[in-house]
Amino acid sequence: MIDRLKLINEMAVDNGSKIILLVMDGLGGLPLEPGGPTELEAALTPNMDALTSRSSLGLSEVVAPAFSPGSGPGHLALFGYDPLEYVIGRGVLEALGINFPLQKHDIAIRANFCTLDEKGNITDRRAGRIPTPECARRVEILRQIKIPGVEIFVEPVKEYRFVLVLRGEGLGATIPDNDPQLTGVPALPIKGEDAASEKTAAILREWWAEANKLLAGYPPANSCLLRGISNDPGMPRFPEVFKIRSAAVAVYPMYKGVSRLVGMHLIEHNAETPAEEFEVVKQHWNEYDFFFIHIKKTDSYGEDGKFDERVHVIESVDEALPVLLNLKPSVLVITGDHSTPAKLSRHSWHKLPVLLASDTARFGKATKFGETSCVTGTLGPIHHMDILPLALAHSLRLGKYGA
Amino acid sequence: MIDRLKLINEMAVDNGSKIILLVMDGLGGLPLEPGGPTELEAALTPNMDALTSRSSLGLSEVVAPAFSPGSGPGHLALFGYDPLEYVIGRGVLEALGINFPLQKHDIAIRANFCTLDEKGNITDRRAGRIPTPECARRVEILRQIKIPGVEIFVEPVKEYRFVLVLRGEGLGATIPDNDPQLTGVPALPIKGEDAASEKTAAILREWWAEANKLLAGYPPANSCLLRGISNDPGMPRFPEVFKIRSAAVAVYPMYKGVSRLVGMHLIEHNAETPAEEFEVVKQHWNEYDFFFIHIKKTDSYGEDGKFDERVHVIESVDEALPVLLNLKPSVLVITGDHSTPAKLSRHSWHKLPVLLASDTARFGKATKFGETSCVTGTLGPIHHMDILPLALAHSLRLGKYGA
Repeated sequence: MIDRLKLINEMAVDNGSKIILLVMDGLGGLPLEPGGPTELEAALTPNMDALTSRSSLGLSEVVAPAFSPGSGPGHLALFGYDPLEYVIGRGVLEALGINFPLQKHDIAIRANFCTLDEKGNITDRRAGRIPTPECARRVEILRQIKIPGVEIFVEPVKEYRFVLVLRGEGLGATIPDNDPQLTGVPALPIKGEDAASEKTAAILREWWAEANKLLAGYPPANSCLLRGISNDPGMPRFPEVFKIRSAAVAVYPMYKGVSRLVGMHLIEHNAETPAEEFEVVKQHWNEYDFFFIHIKKTDSYGEDGKFDERVHVIESVDEALPVLLNLKPSVLVITGDHSTPAKLSRHSWHKLPVLLASDTARFGKATKFGETSCVTGTLGPIHHMDILPLALAHSLRLGKYGA
Repeated sequence: MIDRLKLINEMAVDNGSKIILLVMDGLGGLPLEPGGPTELEAALTPNMDALTSRSSLGLSEVVAPAFSPGSGPGHLALFGYDPLEYVIGRGVLEALGINFPLQKHDIAIRANFCTLDEKGNITDRRAGRIPTPECARRVEILRQIKIPGVEIFVEPVKEYRFVLVLRGEGLGATIPDNDPQLTGVPALPIKGEDAASEKTAAILREWWAEANKLLAGYPPANSCLLRGISNDPGMPRFPEVFKIRSAAVAVYPMYKGVSRLVGMHLIEHNAETPAEEFEVVKQHWNEYDFFFIHIKKTDSYGEDGKFDERVHVIESVDEALPVLLNLKPSVLVITGDHSTPAKLSRHSWHKLPVLLASDTARFGKATKFGETSCVTGTLGPIHHMDILPLALAHSLRLGKYGA
């Protein structure tokens, strides 16, 4: 197969032009009723609407038709990687999300504290959602476990969630979760699917048995479930593949983590609102040529089924947009990583609206940025993994293919 | 992998119906200002506009999103070949471009005269862009070089560029350029990457050493760089794959060359204007069933940034169009090989408008042929390599796939 990233890398030139990729998590929406607007269409977005006249709009598929993307595949696609070719395990995503300094061959595990009854059956897969300080206290206890030949790290995340990392030689990661996804049954046995993974599994069985002993006196979190056992997939590095100095401005750990995994620089900041995040970009404008900005709350409110709150987040992004526009990027892309319609309270498979503003865009006739106007946009139907190459092309960072 | 051309070949039947593929080089354009028309939309094209009512329109990707195609990939795609699978080397393209009668196993090289200092370091990769007569004079000198076992051809191109062709037995072409793409350093050693290519490399090393001796007294062009070393990729032959008697009417050598490379018959003529080219088609109408017509100046004016001149070329094509329409082809396709918007003065990545006129088309509602109307055309979004199969299908030259 032809290596798409290699071809793009060969065409890429660093001309110093600047690109902003503004991602509203879960942006794609649905109308609540026939004839009604989506969240984006309901929002008052005078700045984005004005931008449409010097933009190219398109409707974009994140992974494949009917696939509802998780945050990992959604962001890999946004960063130009084929999400069916490159897969980040959930353990790795969780470790990145708490800023754990993961090394190349580390095995990362996303773990849940859970509650077992006296027969060893699971009664609560989330241990009553214990508060975060309770999580940290139990993590301290688990740090006592030592197994020869392997370094073990245990880190709290939030409520009942923590991360377990194994560092050692020759460890594989092809091990199914021991979480049965059910209550009233015991945890599943931990088994590796190849020799290297069975080596890891043996360590995890020993660790899990010790953990159960140590946690026995601390209900409701008296055991744990090991999930998303994985390691760094070793992706081509974004700044080198695309030849661009790249930085991420994100508030939530997971998005920081995915950005770092592909090799972007993470800008440290205390911003929380979209306006504050945009100010961070402004402050660092001369240091990088590519800025990935992540807005979380469009997704959170979607998951909670809150249509109006999603509308307000989109409006707050629009209101702050002049900060970015005044920086005069060569290309500004506005889109999301997947749809999270309030109507469904979940990630969905619906295609995403994309706005690409640039002097080199084929301007269209739309006057409003929304799912409907994107159907007939001049970008046409596109794939998410092509958004980044298209941004490079529009900033004249890609040469010709063939003579 | 499924061999797409093999499947099409198996479905193809020769029913004697006639197809015209009218290519305006670099046709895709951009509006100069928000709300403005592209070159095609600005042009007065009453004949094409009238044709839209009995056509299917579509917006087409030539290679892949964000890829700005060279003329080679653009035309291969138009001829139905996957431009990521079939690649014509730059040396071959350059030889075809000067109408050199390249044979099947010839090795073609795109060479630059360059300037070396007394230490053998390159000081100018283009030898001060010597005028074409100076190029021809040095080419005469280089023709003195004889090497046993191989026939050698040297032909001037333009300014500092010339073509070198080796004809002999068992010559490979996997040899990197000896051009370091830098000044202040010597040319790179010439090395083959396999046995057959090393045989070629040994000849080229000997030739290059001789060339340096002969050119020593002729600064600034006292040496040369050998680039794009390549041979005929041996593509499946167009008339046989698609089962159609095929001819090309082109004015510029490169397009004649690519047509000949895929096995089309080149019609000899003295035509220069679109109207004159169409008359050539009329004269030869009974001899062939497929006519590729190439109009160059839409691209040339695009490269020069001349919007109005591009508009005028498109208008001259439209004005002459009745000559083709009166021949009553079963299918007439009008499109380009890539975009060359005057606004950018270069080949670009923007998708191309396609008009496919045929009694068997799914007629749409458009009243004007242009990039905007093609977004919502009934052909939908398509790929360039599917245009030729679609033309065959619309002329009922393709049978069923499967029972």
